[in-house]
Amino acid sequence: MSSFIEVPAGSDFSIHNLPYGVFSTKNNPKKRIGVAIGEQILDLSVTKHLFTGPELKSHQDVFTEETLNSFMALPRAAWVEARQILQNLLSTETTTLQNDSNLRSQAFVKQSEAQMHLPAKIGDYTDFYSSYYHAFNVGTLFRGKDNALCENWRHIPIAYHGRASSVVVSGTDIIRPKGQTKADTESTPTYGPSKLLDYELEMAFFVGGPPTKLGEQIPIDKTEDHIFGMVIMNDWSARDIQKWEYIPLGPFLGKSFGTTISPWIVTMEALKPFLVENPKQDPQPLEYLRHNDKYSFDINLQVAIQPKNSSGPSPVSKTSLRHHYWTLKQQLAHHTVNGCNVNPGDLLASGTISGPEDTEYGSMLELSWRGSKWIPVGEEQRKFLQDEDQVVMTGYCEKDGVRVGFGECRGKVLPALK
Amino acid sequence: MSSFIEVPAGSDFSIHNLPYGVFSTKNNPKKRIGVAIGEQILDLSVTKHLFTGPELKSHQDVFTEETLNSFMALPRAAWVEARQILQNLLSTETTTLQNDSNLRSQAFVKQSEAQMHLPAKIGDYTDFYSSYYHAFNVGTLFRGKDNALCENWRHIPIAYHGRASSVVVSGTDIIRPKGQTKADTESTPTYGPSKLLDYELEMAFFVGGPPTKLGEQIPIDKTEDHIFGMVIMNDWSARDIQKWEYIPLGPFLGKSFGTTISPWIVTMEALKPFLVENPKQDPQPLEYLRHNDKYSFDINLQVAIQPKNSSGPSPVSKTSLRHHYWTLKQQLAHHTVNGCNVNPGDLLASGTISGPEDTEYGSMLELSWRGSKWIPVGEEQRKFLQDEDQVVMTGYCEKDGVRVGFGECRGKVLPALK
Repeated sequence: MSSFIEVPAGSDFSIHNLPYGVFSTKNNPKKRIGVAIGEQILDLSVTKHLFTGPELKSHQDVFTEETLNSFMALPRAAWVEARQILQNLLSTETTTLQNDSNLRSQAFVKQSEAQMHLPAKIGDYTDFYSSYYHAFNVGTLFRGKDNALCENWRHIPIAYHGRASSVVVSGTDIIRPKGQTKADTESTPTYGPSKLLDYELEMAFFVGGPPTKLGEQIPIDKTEDHIFGMVIMNDWSARDIQKWEYIPLGPFLGKSFGTTISPWIVTMEALKPFLVENPKQDPQPLEYLRHNDKYSFDINLQVAIQPKNSSGPSPVSKTSLRHHYWTLKQQLAHHTVNGCNVNPGDLLASGTISGPEDTEYGSMLELSWRGSKWIPVGEEQRKFLQDEDQVVMTGYCEKDGVRVGFGECRGKVLPALK
Repeated sequence: MSSFIEVPAGSDFSIHNLPYGVFSTKNNPKKRIGVAIGEQILDLSVTKHLFTGPELKSHQDVFTEETLNSFMALPRAAWVEARQILQNLLSTETTTLQNDSNLRSQAFVKQSEAQMHLPAKIGDYTDFYSSYYHAFNVGTLFRGKDNALCENWRHIPIAYHGRASSVVVSGTDIIRPKGQTKADTESTPTYGPSKLLDYELEMAFFVGGPPTKLGEQIPIDKTEDHIFGMVIMNDWSARDIQKWEYIPLGPFLGKSFGTTISPWIVTMEALKPFLVENPKQDPQPLEYLRHNDKYSFDINLQVAIQPKNSSGPSPVSKTSLRHHYWTLKQQLAHHTVNGCNVNPGDLLASGTISGPEDTEYGSMLELSWRGSKWIPVGEEQRKFLQDEDQVVMTGYCEKDGVRVGFGECRGKVLPALK
């Protein structure tokens, strides 16, 4: 299958992908829903009348909204139908859009001329802690190898509630946070800019489907109906603020100054060809967390840092989501096991993604082993982030010549305010 | 000052109070903004044209919305003006509303005939941990008296992000949550209904004023411009779920199955007469947390439990918000010190409110001293909540014959789902 829209070699956005985002342009500042194809965006607000299938024909207005929430709120059958229609419309083998030069001229916008926005209004944002290697590394750093993993970690997909208001889209600058920290060598805390600013490589999924009611569980075999699609996420972390505040109630201001997501939501349908075996879980989890179907994805991930005045980003680590211990299905089943209600547009993040090798660590805390060694960054080196550093996270799946990618999750660190 | 609307003796809702809420009626299911007065509600959607002051005359439409968010988003001067206009309209000494029998017949609804709703769309909900006595009690129970308070507690208003989606209005039933727990005597966890269901007596304030930008701090001397008003809150807690999940990232499913707030938001203007000296803080907090003006409130609080088949609620504890260590101003200044943005409608809760005496504890965990003794409840006794128990929290201020109250924060425990 190929598209009449040119898709350059190595593009993240072939006809096999078709991720959703929200964009505006200089000439038209209204936020609109679009689909990435090659270096273009198909504007769904202009083409909504083409969604004439049984699931969408009476819901075309979801494509004139300023966020994806209403589309996400439709049943999964509608997402599947939308994908079929889009692949059909964009295919070389159909003419509806291809041969309608008037509609084509209105329907496509160059990505280079678009401003991307948050794809959804995020009601609640939850951050899991589902990478065994990350949990083991951080546990080793703080409690030693023998006590690295907490007793509950292999039984529960551990998570905490994050701050929804400070989730921003790729490209948004992040101001170095100020706050309260206490050095081990000092007896009292001090106030000032964080000295240990870090990133965390994560992925996150958006909840879809009709809202659930308070008290309602999503059984694990129904979770797929509520998993809309994924983005790459940078969970910026101020390690010194986090260390002094997090006992006993967890991370708070060490995280809530900013969380960046990539703008294009890659749907689970597009990711299906890249399913791999689930990681072995030992001990076997409780029954409400068990599923036998594959729901792990081989998504290649890279973090790069671009210091000020350098010509481009230099990779500092590479890994894959396939190493993750808990699956997305297990995360969602666990999140709702107590009756917690979820809404379309809720964001559930993976936690830092680290792989088994020391080149696969998803944070500078791990790569620099708590600041005990330098991380090479092109011509420079780092232990933690400096002002003006840009962090660029990317990810893609590739198999049998088909590539499905996520675009960039990028953010620049600005100096703390005076 | 008195109102031409009858206010029974002991009413929470005199003309000195005038709290805001959102209601609907059987005959008119549209959600509307109202103000409680005596046993009536003044419907602001019908009387918005009377808000003709300089701050509100061009913003009257905020009173036809289905939540208070837009009204909250106006500057504090608008809230002050609205209160003056309302006191004036409802006073025995003015005739605009009093003598307009047509408008009066449309403008008032009996509280007994109204269904109350959440007063605002809550963007983010944060829960603090600001009661010294509660933190000391819980710390003593879990770590012993000598290590009761964590090292950071007297320096930081400790908090965690809570779940916004599961905040519900008084009167909503709470289904006993299921989840994963592990007894100390067992080596593996089990799945089932929580056996240690508890309440937490809290108060919470709604953020108001224009949204802040990401990166922007609210200095402590500007916090008052962003504190709209307060409610009573029950932070329902499943102690067994909480205990097994909370290390290292804090409370999650032990809380997110439901959080109940009272429906009427009592404004800070109405609470001003009940200001008392702030608690002594030792050591002195860092400068960004210091303020010299009084911002502690003597709000009398009571928790009562009404078992199934009992004729009414039996009080189990009484305390006052005056015992709280960190002030609302300190909480908000701390929350935004890292540049975390806040929005009108965000909810910031106090954490469990306990006083110094053992009759003043704000949770059953403390009252039963971790289940080691019985709590008398009328003719019955409890260690934790049973199915069909109702928890009723109330609060009021009283001084010089003026009473300002909060109404009820009530919820009934329903059995876990099969």
